[in-house]
Amino acid sequence: MPISAMYAPVQEDLAKLEDRLRLVSKVGSSWLFKLLEYSLEGGGKRVRPALTLLSGKFYDYNLDCLLLMATAVELFHTATLVHDDAIDKSLVRRGRPTINSVWDEDKAVLLGNYLFAKAGELVTDTKNLRVVKLFTQTLMTISSGELSQSFSAFNLEQSLQNYLERISGKTASLFSMATESGAILSQAPGKSVQVLKEYGYNLGIAFQIVDDILDFIGTEEEMGKPIGSDLAQGTLTLPAMILLERYPEDNPIKRVFQGEDKQKNIELAIELIRDSSIVSECYKVASEYCSKACHSLNLLPDIASRQALIALADYIVDRKR
Amino acid sequence: MPISAMYAPVQEDLAKLEDRLRLVSKVGSSWLFKLLEYSLEGGGKRVRPALTLLSGKFYDYNLDCLLLMATAVELFHTATLVHDDAIDKSLVRRGRPTINSVWDEDKAVLLGNYLFAKAGELVTDTKNLRVVKLFTQTLMTISSGELSQSFSAFNLEQSLQNYLERISGKTASLFSMATESGAILSQAPGKSVQVLKEYGYNLGIAFQIVDDILDFIGTEEEMGKPIGSDLAQGTLTLPAMILLERYPEDNPIKRVFQGEDKQKNIELAIELIRDSSIVSECYKVASEYCSKACHSLNLLPDIASRQALIALADYIVDRKR
Repeated sequence: MPISAMYAPVQEDLAKLEDRLRLVSKVGSSWLFKLLEYSLEGGGKRVRPALTLLSGKFYDYNLDCLLLMATAVELFHTATLVHDDAIDKSLVRRGRPTINSVWDEDKAVLLGNYLFAKAGELVTDTKNLRVVKLFTQTLMTISSGELSQSFSAFNLEQSLQNYLERISGKTASLFSMATESGAILSQAPGKSVQVLKEYGYNLGIAFQIVDDILDFIGTEEEMGKPIGSDLAQGTLTLPAMILLERYPEDNPIKRVFQGEDKQKNIELAIELIRDSSIVSECYKVASEYCSKACHSLNLLPDIASRQALIALADYIVDRKR
Repeated sequence: MPISAMYAPVQEDLAKLEDRLRLVSKVGSSWLFKLLEYSLEGGGKRVRPALTLLSGKFYDYNLDCLLLMATAVELFHTATLVHDDAIDKSLVRRGRPTINSVWDEDKAVLLGNYLFAKAGELVTDTKNLRVVKLFTQTLMTISSGELSQSFSAFNLEQSLQNYLERISGKTASLFSMATESGAILSQAPGKSVQVLKEYGYNLGIAFQIVDDILDFIGTEEEMGKPIGSDLAQGTLTLPAMILLERYPEDNPIKRVFQGEDKQKNIELAIELIRDSSIVSECYKVASEYCSKACHSLNLLPDIASRQALIALADYIVDRKR
């Protein structure tokens, strides 16, 4: 099933989201205009804003408020990507040169700040202090999660718990904000807010685990960026952790982290992971999080969005990019 | 007059601000704790949060709300410094190694993001949507001002207007937010909000002009960072613009910007500026902005804070660091 099928209940409103995103670039400064336009036309899948709109469908669907929030969610996500690429010195994202490679890292940092602020302005326009606070706390959680990833780079001594905490901070928190804010802005009752928040959180964990798998088994063409980039950055992800556990003595990942013949050892690690049961083990973990995500959805009204959220969870695991 | 004298009307509350800032560092992650503690104990003059508190004194001085805002203002300022140093690759600030030199630029970017977010959370806790919106718009203005500075680096063709726009964006906007938010949170009437906002704005312009003068005539010891750093970064400031105008043909700044014998030509430019009337011309411009800042203050109630704001404007011009 293509992702557009799952977006059906909010398809028209996602078109409006694109209009809103285009409006964000319409600023006086020609340089800022170019940076904004470039960063927002990258053709992402818009999963996160779709989640906000879908989550808003169960109760009072206040389109104006939800569009503000969905636009903010996408800008927030874009800001984190722009900063991540600058920090990792990544050259390509979604098959296109990154902001830091077309311009430079300084511009990427400042553009990211502008995007965070613009997102914050839109969230404030919802006039809902609870989602504004959620927004600021999510940025704190993400920054702190990424700091923890940065401090643990090239460290082999990491537990599964460390990994889950890291991806919870850097990815699941934004998914969870996307769904929780949709619920809050549609005046969902407390229990339903909780259900949608947990759905987003668990979906986010699954999404990141699949991302981490694809960094080993995807192709550069599908992924729009080089494969094995996590290892190159010194980031230990689930497949790598299982490989390390399986071969505790002689392991290419150890050699990568010790700086020995990096490229060759990254390729070796990719090969070992691809040819083993590690991939299916990791997919099993991701699927479990997706099941967990959907577990309580039956507490919500039985509308098309509920089916869409369930289908989205399947899509997250099956996706190739 | 020492700066503490001007702070007299809010001295006790500035001590509470220090407590609040210390509380910000108290987080679970030991790495984040270290980064926060280091970045907040740098011994700044706390001018901006003092402005928020002083501006709040004219009407309903709601200490809790104003302390939230003042703390946010200082965190916001700290975040911009942390990012600026990372972008400029500066090694020293206030006589101490910068975050990017003790750790690295990646950590500085992420710490800055955390500080922006924490500031946003505190502003949200005031429950005043108007100041939350002001906060987000100020971050947009600052980012866009710094982008404009980054794009115009090493460009000799800049007008005084360009310069004023740049410093308005990167400095005056935060001063203006500091005073305007204090006024709003103390329920000041519209006209008084406008007076305090304009005071902050003009004071900020003056502050930046003096900063730009001190980068030529200060000492490394007083400034806590190397002299001539603006020219080294390719930033054209008021003293440099006047020097360029005065010697349009053979000018050391042209040679700096063309990459010729950078250090020698920076020193030459510093010498030419110090030994000329350029310094007093620039101080004259700064003083004019300070007068403009104070011009409408007599529309406010005649309390100690009004005298403090006037004295602060004098201090801004006379300061040595």
